[in-house]
Amino acid sequence: MPHIPLPDHLPGITGLLEYRLDTAMPIRELTQILLRGESTLTQGERELIAALVSSRNCTNFCNAAHTKAADLLLGEDQTAAAVKADIETAPISEKMKALLQIAAQTQKSGRAVTSEAVDRAHTAGATDREIHDTVLIAALFCLYNKYVDGMATVTPTDPAYYDTLGDRIVNRGYNRPPGGYPAPQK
Amino acid sequence: MPHIPLPDHLPGITGLLEYRLDTAMPIRELTQILLRGESTLTQGERELIAALVSSRNCTNFCNAAHTKAADLLLGEDQTAAAVKADIETAPISEKMKALLQIAAQTQKSGRAVTSEAVDRAHTAGATDREIHDTVLIAALFCLYNKYVDGMATVTPTDPAYYDTLGDRIVNRGYNRPPGGYPAPQK
Repeated sequence: MPHIPLPDHLPGITGLLEYRLDTAMPIRELTQILLRGESTLTQGERELIAALVSSRNCTNFCNAAHTKAADLLLGEDQTAAAVKADIETAPISEKMKALLQIAAQTQKSGRAVTSEAVDRAHTAGATDREIHDTVLIAALFCLYNKYVDGMATVTPTDPAYYDTLGDRIVNRGYNRPPGGYPAPQK
Repeated sequence: MPHIPLPDHLPGITGLLEYRLDTAMPIRELTQILLRGESTLTQGERELIAALVSSRNCTNFCNAAHTKAADLLLGEDQTAAAVKADIETAPISEKMKALLQIAAQTQKSGRAVTSEAVDRAHTAGATDREIHDTVLIAALFCLYNKYVDGMATVTPTDPAYYDTLGDRIVNRGYNRPPGGYPAPQK
């Protein structure tokens, strides 16, 4: 049960984003820019960062939602699962391995990000901007994970919920839908 | 040395907020709403949350900046130091002790926030909104701390730097100054 009253039909982050619309707006905007805006990282690669960080923070709602989004964007469901199990053996480029290691370090602590990890990313062809965005996306999802878990929001157990949510964030993005965040389809 | 090239005269978060202006805008806006917007928590109380979380994350830049801001807003420099040393013996209300414990739990992990801590805050008179805002401010400063440390930004050692920065965020807030973030006064 959430620590404060939130609508039953809006679990996880969705009820929090409706609870305070004024703070939700810049959170949504930052997410839309970082995950859907212009970037040399694909949207699928950026969702992998979100899924990995949420998995490491054990935030089941965000983990399920962004894993589903990554799966839809990548067109298969093997890569996100493999990344979360072991970055180094996942079927991704050396550049993405290096960037995901930086994201994993950021999840632990900003102070855990090593020069060696950054050098590896640069050597694999990552740009400064890609390294910057990886750290900021990882930090943003730590915010989300702490917000969602810190308020003890509800985590649906039915996979169909995340099918609907993943489809929504892939096809409509992170901005607030006109009229509010729709209730999940039953 | 930062992991990516950033201007020498813009240490800590300041150089990062100039590096990507599009992502900086919603980060600034969220901070301005949460720390300076309408609230039943004073601005000084909200800066105490920022200082405590930054201290627990060992992010020296943010810790120094928000401790200075809290000191200026509270009109003395004992309370922030006492809160960071031991919340329970600090010269603050029972409600603020309860909220700061929730912030400290959020810093560790969203899953670390207990119903007992929330019950204590409610019993001490904290509103749902105050509990919500405490968690979100703590989560936001974890984002900042991971961003600042994860990019290995420079931390000035001269206390005068934080006098200037603290004065700026108390008197001008978190929005971007017209023309950009000014260089610190020498």
